[in-house]
Amino acid sequence: MLRLNPVGYYRFVQASQFESSYAGGEANVAVSLANYGMSAAFVTKVPEHEIGQCAVNAMRQYGVDTTYMYRGGSRLGVYYAEKGASQRPSKVIYDRAGSSITTAKPEEFQWDEIFRDADWFHFTGITPALGGDLPKICLDACKAAKKRGLTVSCDLNYRKKLWSREDAGRVMAELMPYVDVCISNEEDAKDVFNIEAANNNVEGGNLNRQGYISVAQQLQARFGTKMVAITLRESLSANDNNWGAMLYCDGQAYFSPTYRIHIVDRVGGGDSFGAGLIYGVLEEKAPQDAINFATAASCLKHTIEHDVNLVTVEEVNALVAGNSTGRVQR
Amino acid sequence: MLRLNPVGYYRFVQASQFESSYAGGEANVAVSLANYGMSAAFVTKVPEHEIGQCAVNAMRQYGVDTTYMYRGGSRLGVYYAEKGASQRPSKVIYDRAGSSITTAKPEEFQWDEIFRDADWFHFTGITPALGGDLPKICLDACKAAKKRGLTVSCDLNYRKKLWSREDAGRVMAELMPYVDVCISNEEDAKDVFNIEAANNNVEGGNLNRQGYISVAQQLQARFGTKMVAITLRESLSANDNNWGAMLYCDGQAYFSPTYRIHIVDRVGGGDSFGAGLIYGVLEEKAPQDAINFATAASCLKHTIEHDVNLVTVEEVNALVAGNSTGRVQR
Amino acid sequence: MLRLNPVGYYRFVQASQFESSYAGGEANVAVSLANYGMSAAFVTKVPEHEIGQCAVNAMRQYGVDTTYMYRGGSRLGVYYAEKGASQRPSKVIYDRAGSSITTAKPEEFQWDEIFRDADWFHFTGITPALGGDLPKICLDACKAAKKRGLTVSCDLNYRKKLWSREDAGRVMAELMPYVDVCISNEEDAKDVFNIEAANNNVEGGNLNRQGYISVAQQLQARFGTKMVAITLRESLSANDNNWGAMLYCDGQAYFSPTYRIHIVDRVGGGDSFGAGLIYGVLEEKAPQDAINFATAASCLKHTIEHDVNLVTVEEVNALVAGNSTGRVQR
Amino acid sequence: MLRLNPVGYYRFVQASQFESSYAGGEANVAVSLANYGMSAAFVTKVPEHEIGQCAVNAMRQYGVDTTYMYRGGSRLGVYYAEKGASQRPSKVIYDRAGSSITTAKPEEFQWDEIFRDADWFHFTGITPALGGDLPKICLDACKAAKKRGLTVSCDLNYRKKLWSREDAGRVMAELMPYVDVCISNEEDAKDVFNIEAANNNVEGGNLNRQGYISVAQQLQARFGTKMVAITLRESLSANDNNWGAMLYCDGQAYFSPTYRIHIVDRVGGGDSFGAGLIYGVLEEKAPQDAINFATAASCLKHTIEHDVNLVTVEEVNALVAGNSTGRVQR
Amino acid sequence: MLRLNPVGYYRFVQASQFESSYAGGEANVAVSLANYGMSAAFVTKVPEHEIGQCAVNAMRQYGVDTTYMYRGGSRLGVYYAEKGASQRPSKVIYDRAGSSITTAKPEEFQWDEIFRDADWFHFTGITPALGGDLPKICLDACKAAKKRGLTVSCDLNYRKKLWSREDAGRVMAELMPYVDVCISNEEDAKDVFNIEAANNNVEGGNLNRQGYISVAQQLQARFGTKMVAITLRESLSANDNNWGAMLYCDGQAYFSPTYRIHIVDRVGGGDSFGAGLIYGVLEEKAPQDAINFATAASCLKHTIEHDVNLVTVEEVNALVAGNSTGRVQR
Amino acid sequence: MLRLNPVGYYRFVQASQFESSYAGGEANVAVSLANYGMSAAFVTKVPEHEIGQCAVNAMRQYGVDTTYMYRGGSRLGVYYAEKGASQRPSKVIYDRAGSSITTAKPEEFQWDEIFRDADWFHFTGITPALGGDLPKICLDACKAAKKRGLTVSCDLNYRKKLWSREDAGRVMAELMPYVDVCISNEEDAKDVFNIEAANNNVEGGNLNRQGYISVAQQLQARFGTKMVAITLRESLSANDNNWGAMLYCDGQAYFSPTYRIHIVDRVGGGDSFGAGLIYGVLEEKAPQDAINFATAASCLKHTIEHDVNLVTVEEVNALVAGNSTGRVQR
Ligand SMILES: [Ca+2]
Ligand SMILES: [Ca+2]
Ligand SMILES: [Ca+2]
Ligand SMILES: [Ca+2]
Ligand SMILES: [Ca+2]
Ligand SMILES: [Ca+2]
Ligand SMILES: [Ca+2]
Ligand SMILES: [Ca+2]
Ligand SMILES: [Ca+2]
Ligand SMILES: [Ca+2]
Ligand SMILES: [Ca+2]
Ligand SMILES: [Ca+2]
Ligand code: NI
Ligand code: NI
Ligand code: NI
Ligand code: NI
Ligand code: NI
Ligand code: NI
Ligand code: NI
Ligand code: NI
Ligand code: NI
Ligand code: NI
Ligand code: NI
Ligand code: NI
Ligand code: NI
Ligand code: NI
Ligand code: NI
Ligand code: NI
Ligand code: NI
Ligand code: NI
Repeated sequence: MLRLNPVGYYRFVQASQFESSYAGGEANVAVSLANYGMSAAFVTKVPEHEIGQCAVNAMRQYGVDTTYMYRGGSRLGVYYAEKGASQRPSKVIYDRAGSSITTAKPEEFQWDEIFRDADWFHFTGITPALGGDLPKICLDACKAAKKRGLTVSCDLNYRKKLWSREDAGRVMAELMPYVDVCISNEEDAKDVFNIEAANNNVEGGNLNRQGYISVAQQLQARFGTKMVAITLRESLSANDNNWGAMLYCDGQAYFSPTYRIHIVDRVGGGDSFGAGLIYGVLEEKAPQDAINFATAASCLKHTIEHDVNLVTVEEVNALVAGNSTGRVQR
Repeated sequence: MLRLNPVGYYRFVQASQFESSYAGGEANVAVSLANYGMSAAFVTKVPEHEIGQCAVNAMRQYGVDTTYMYRGGSRLGVYYAEKGASQRPSKVIYDRAGSSITTAKPEEFQWDEIFRDADWFHFTGITPALGGDLPKICLDACKAAKKRGLTVSCDLNYRKKLWSREDAGRVMAELMPYVDVCISNEEDAKDVFNIEAANNNVEGGNLNRQGYISVAQQLQARFGTKMVAITLRESLSANDNNWGAMLYCDGQAYFSPTYRIHIVDRVGGGDSFGAGLIYGVLEEKAPQDAINFATAASCLKHTIEHDVNLVTVEEVNALVAGNSTGRVQR
Repeated sequence: MLRLNPVGYYRFVQASQFESSYAGGEANVAVSLANYGMSAAFVTKVPEHEIGQCAVNAMRQYGVDTTYMYRGGSRLGVYYAEKGASQRPSKVIYDRAGSSITTAKPEEFQWDEIFRDADWFHFTGITPALGGDLPKICLDACKAAKKRGLTVSCDLNYRKKLWSREDAGRVMAELMPYVDVCISNEEDAKDVFNIEAANNNVEGGNLNRQGYISVAQQLQARFGTKMVAITLRESLSANDNNWGAMLYCDGQAYFSPTYRIHIVDRVGGGDSFGAGLIYGVLEEKAPQDAINFATAASCLKHTIEHDVNLVTVEEVNALVAGNSTGRVQR
Repeated sequence: MLRLNPVGYYRFVQASQFESSYAGGEANVAVSLANYGMSAAFVTKVPEHEIGQCAVNAMRQYGVDTTYMYRGGSRLGVYYAEKGASQRPSKVIYDRAGSSITTAKPEEFQWDEIFRDADWFHFTGITPALGGDLPKICLDACKAAKKRGLTVSCDLNYRKKLWSREDAGRVMAELMPYVDVCISNEEDAKDVFNIEAANNNVEGGNLNRQGYISVAQQLQARFGTKMVAITLRESLSANDNNWGAMLYCDGQAYFSPTYRIHIVDRVGGGDSFGAGLIYGVLEEKAPQDAINFATAASCLKHTIEHDVNLVTVEEVNALVAGNSTGRVQR
Repeated sequence: MLRLNPVGYYRFVQASQFESSYAGGEANVAVSLANYGMSAAFVTKVPEHEIGQCAVNAMRQYGVDTTYMYRGGSRLGVYYAEKGASQRPSKVIYDRAGSSITTAKPEEFQWDEIFRDADWFHFTGITPALGGDLPKICLDACKAAKKRGLTVSCDLNYRKKLWSREDAGRVMAELMPYVDVCISNEEDAKDVFNIEAANNNVEGGNLNRQGYISVAQQLQARFGTKMVAITLRESLSANDNNWGAMLYCDGQAYFSPTYRIHIVDRVGGGDSFGAGLIYGVLEEKAPQDAINFATAASCLKHTIEHDVNLVTVEEVNALVAGNSTGRVQR
Repeated sequence: MLRLNPVGYYRFVQASQFESSYAGGEANVAVSLANYGMSAAFVTKVPEHEIGQCAVNAMRQYGVDTTYMYRGGSRLGVYYAEKGASQRPSKVIYDRAGSSITTAKPEEFQWDEIFRDADWFHFTGITPALGGDLPKICLDACKAAKKRGLTVSCDLNYRKKLWSREDAGRVMAELMPYVDVCISNEEDAKDVFNIEAANNNVEGGNLNRQGYISVAQQLQARFGTKMVAITLRESLSANDNNWGAMLYCDGQAYFSPTYRIHIVDRVGGGDSFGAGLIYGVLEEKAPQDAINFATAASCLKHTIEHDVNLVTVEEVNALVAGNSTGRVQR
């Protein structure tokens, strides 16, 4: 998907140019994993023309395998992003109806070939939300993944402009049984499955740890999910957020430290968390270490322009180790 | 429609930002006329969100009446433009399927109100080519315009990626009887109506005056068009073109001088010609003066970035009067 | 007036380019009101050349009626703005001596025609401060406005580089009797009329509510002003300000909430407050609602580059309603 | 003087930023001479504020002595420049009424000190054209220069927007007797002194060598000027010019080669010619070598953005020696 | 190697920023081949820090295999490029002493592994010119390539700032026996091997076909080279060049058409020719078709910013087929 | 040295252009002093090519005497700077091996001539760290300075990538006996001389005043240094630092106020402190006034892009006087 954002803090109506970058839930995760030195492939469909090629090049640049970025259809999805400041919120306008991926057919994806050397399959709730045959394609992928013994992760990523809560709940409920690791922000579980974190006030801070544990337990109870990770964002202003996360597995909750972040660009924060978690699990970190890594990784994402999290394992580890003072590295 | 082009001569695959501007056949004509001090309104439909607002603002900025830029639908059409140089051609990628205007319904347009104080109605062949109810909407507009005594002009503007020659021929043939002034480039008449300028070699130069007269006569014979204007472009390279035009009316052909142009941006050249011609006819210029004005106006367009022709009547007249040496105006 | 500012945080001596925008006290108010869907016209005089045209276009772009932007004189006023950061203050250098508006003559303004469909007339103390016949022109406008039953508002906007306190006091005292709504910042009333807010320390915070009430009462007592609005800025640093306001009317003081703002660009903050207040009064909001709207509107201005406040009524209302956390709007 | 120009080929009405640079007839000459390794000082007056400081810094950057850039007055002159292309001419809008230099008083300039170590004094006709006491100041400078044995050069540089032909003729006639080297373009001598180059068609090419010799002879006859240099520009389009020059001295005319130039920025072309000529004479080049150097230097200026000619003696000499093919220097 | 160039036509001394891109003779060839859909790997050594990573990413972005971009050493070579215009030549300043590749050791390169699936090995004369062990490394590569049956090509690419003609002649003579395809511009053969094209005037045009044939024959006679390709550039100005080439093989000379090019950026022109030729030979084109493809490809390079030739096979074929008029592709 | 940094908060791997500026410990100090109206010369060696000239021009622009910027050698040192944000630290990559200054020979520097009119000599520990003959050159300079009665100051400026602690300790110990004023940050004294500030936690805040006094006393005891100044930085994040300093002289410690800074660019902060201190001492300020001036000056540096501190004495004094609220200066 092409991201177009005005330079700096300009509003849309002030823009005479847009920065262009290429993004998307799964794409962002793939770039992040490639940055960690993992072998990551991005599976999608983009048009044959040059704008589609730009999307391919953007993935290649960061070392993502683009063999399975199929070519066809007529347009690349677009989203417009305006950066907020202080009391003015950021704005995102999606324009992806009719994009190449939404016209994809199940038979175009040879999952057995795609998954040949794979250990993990990750998708987000945005993909089935795009409609067409995408719920079926996701289901095919999940089945093939499980058949071949891959771990499956899903970021619920509910987007109200893409589908209703009812549709989301129905479709995601079909996919969840295949999911080993479920990632959710502080609202997704409620939006999609009506599973609620009691007593928390997302807008105002003061997050309720017990509530999140309860959400994780409900998800696990309903779908048998092995691991549930929930990101906890407190928006103090468009510039300043608190950011932390919880990992629930083996009947136990692991909370990361909370970072107070002075934001450069918060879009893609959730995706960078997902990538950090996948890395942690694949590297067989202990749960506390995995959630700490994922949270530190996604903390750093907030300091980076555009959607993708361009940090190395060493940089994340330095933050995990407590080096959060931003002293110059010479 | 949002135009996105890389800065300068960058190719799409090199771009990390796009210049944004707002354009389209009829929009370009409206801006040009407003620059000449005429009262010009642009009738279309754009989404309610901020990107739609940007399109409205772009028209307002140059003094176009935006009362009839209806709001609704979900996306603004986009086109990507890459500037060619020397032997490398410019490239244009359209992405306008599903744009707000393509979802418009005939009953949304109150032509009697729209045309209340109008003297002229202009449209291009691109609009019905976009499909949906647009052929019907164009027909409604043509009928209402003729009923109220407006002059109607049409730029054939054939785009092969939008419709087949057969579809274009069929639809445009329905609209042409209402058209008083038909504008065509050196290829449109053949593409749309299979009316051919004999013996000309568009790619290589050496345009055949007699052939163009014959095209105009055939158009007139078939549709009763009062005036036919044909633009004559000789592409020497992506940077250098010869540019001239012919106006055929009252049984006589009037040829403009030919300009050798060192190009800044040639997109919108045809639209600026149309606007110049409309201005000339509305100002009741003699045919030779009208075609000279339209050609000089569109010559200047080629020296201006983006689609719209930002020149004044005085500037065009100075070129018509022979001031073509580009000496500094202090 | 043309605003020229270096990009980002560059100092003047580092700049190799300037961002250009078009601004001014009354212009800023007009744009803001047009953004709220009101019909707003800007009355001024700008040169006939292209830089004057740029000023006209900038107003048209945002929907302001430019019929009464008269053309003539030889130069557009300029101001240079350098953005401060942390302990380094912003700097503004004015260059408007001899600008077209300063050479305007009273007889050029047909106030009866200008005010034909108007409900409100707003001006700022900067306009008479520019000298020439401008005090007389303001007086003419005030008289014509009152004669036709318009509400008149004035932002005192004292600028010590434009005139002495004595001159300001004398001229403004002539105009104030026509003013229904007086807007002042925490210093203007003292600078212009020697009316003092007791015991407040503007530089250091700790504003004294009672003091401001007393200022409003004194203004009201001296000039019979119906409404007095005072903006209250606490400068913590060039990046961070507290911002609130008081509206005094019908013998009662209404204080807005105070916003802690992380600043993008604070120039035009006062103008955006004025526009918000005018909107509130024209919409017949209750005083508390009006001051809340005006303060929220101007809070948002601080997050927007350049002078004009590009926000909609919906966006202001969302902040008034307490949505100040800057969460992304998708 | 501050030069503001839109980026690239943008028209004024398209600009959202301006490139800023610092320029002026004498300033341009000073920079050029400093680039040639000569000791050059610029005498003027600029405001004390930061924009004035920017002008000082711009001169210092290129090694010009700024000791005599006096500080005072309130504004730096501005000019807006729009770059033409093909048939569209460049546009220059001056805004220098009231600039610091125009308010200078004769007693502010201690010419004896200024000229202490100087060999040459150069001024242009623009300076007295700015009015105020500047004609007197120029006269003082000329007298002091002659008294101390400096060579005096003057570029007539007629600007019709600054003064009438009559005023120019009268004032310049007072100064010319002190001038040893007079520089004129193909129109200045006629505009200022009604001395005409017979039979030449400046707009269309085909310059008449004999006519220019006659102009030089008339200037010499009237004012006793030792050397007269005339630049010969044929404008083929805004992008392409022919450029050459003639030096007349000791009763003989020396014509440079003519360069066909593909223009980057032609403003300052005349000033760069003057600097090249001054360098040539100071270096005691033979007349043919001097005019060749000056013409090659100013040819190169046309390939450089902004007013000042940033070339070295070596680069000019390479062109004089016939290296005009633009092969890459590695 | 990092390329740094001022934006547009700015001279070095005017630059406040540099465009950054990553380039180098062999890198440019690899990108071009990857663009043609071939599998291309780039073998080099770059530092481990982020600037080295940027070089890797730049190659990946265009699909080049970066497995053999070894990491180590302390700096990435830099070159500064200033774009010329008209009579002002472009300038290139190299800063690559001590770059990582110059510190590479022969034992770091496992040529048998590198060449495992390769059909072709290409290098340029710049690489051994960098000194250290690079001549030995090139020799190792040549030997390994021949042993495994690869075709070897070499672009002589003499750079006088890197080594003397004597050193070049001696080292290259050792490598040439392994070379199947030798590429040279109109000067390299003379600079390196003192093999001269009789009677040609490179600066002035008028290239002598017979002379180039003789050069090719001499190269073939001395080193047994199967194919010799010579590029023929006539520099008319920094903006306009004629460009053609000759391929000599099987005792016959094949001359391409000559293109008159309006230049965007000519650096990398020779490399793009080499890539086109390699593609043609690998695709088993007839000699005339191969030289036509290579020349058309490199003609297009001159219209593209920075070193690498971002064109597809289809685009080159369109130009080969005679589509050189630069008409817009919609 | 050329500084190259991506625009804004872009990471190196995102950059398609770099801002270019010219910097270096001693250069930064010289610019700062010139800004204060002092006569300051910069002694170094830069290459003869245009990039070397850029470094000269950058110094001249701000009024630094560049007579002793000798020309020669082959490259200008480069450093790449990436701006950090929040928890992500800034990164600096040095590339100065082989730069012109590192190849300088002692006999190239005529210290008696250089110091003829000088009162002060300042150098930093970076210069001897660059190796070659630079330790000897520094020693020569120190001796010549002392012989002529100049005050000598040294900023220890330890850089671990340039030399080991052992080398630094040995070389600096030779130079320190000539140093009157020693400047150190909170870590340098330990790194270079193993002199430790007891019990302080640099990363976490909570600096220990007594410890710094002890460091100063130890330096004084060991080398007889008259004045020791220590800067105290607490890094809260990459955006927010606390900044203060201590001056120890005549057996007494003077602590500046501590500033909480919202950072624009912190590189060069130490150099700006040094320049402020030199100014204070040369102006014979009392110790408390001198340290206050130096600290306020360097506080302001953190709000300015790039290395050099572009503030005036008036601006520093305003902050010293307590004007730290960043209110707009109109
Ligand atoms: Ca996303
Ligand atoms: Ca999410
Ligand atoms: Ca169009
Ligand atoms: Ca057309
Ligand atoms: Ca204002
Ligand atoms: Ca105000
Ligand atoms: Ca001039
Ligand atoms: Ca001139
Ligand atoms: Ca090359
Ligand atoms: Ca070559
Ligand atoms: Ca430093
Ligand atoms: Ca330091
Ligand atoms: Ni911030
Ligand atoms: Ni913050
Ligand atoms: Ni960005
Ligand atoms: Ni051309
Ligand atoms: Ni050109
Ligand atoms: Ni453009
Ligand atoms: Ni901030
Ligand atoms: Ni803040
Ligand atoms: Ni701005
Ligand atoms: Ni000038
Ligand atoms: Ni040309
Ligand atoms: Ni420029
Ligand atoms: Ni290279
Ligand atoms: Ni050309
Ligand atoms: Ni470029
Ligand atoms: Ni440094
Ligand atoms: Ni902060
Ligand atoms: Ni910067």
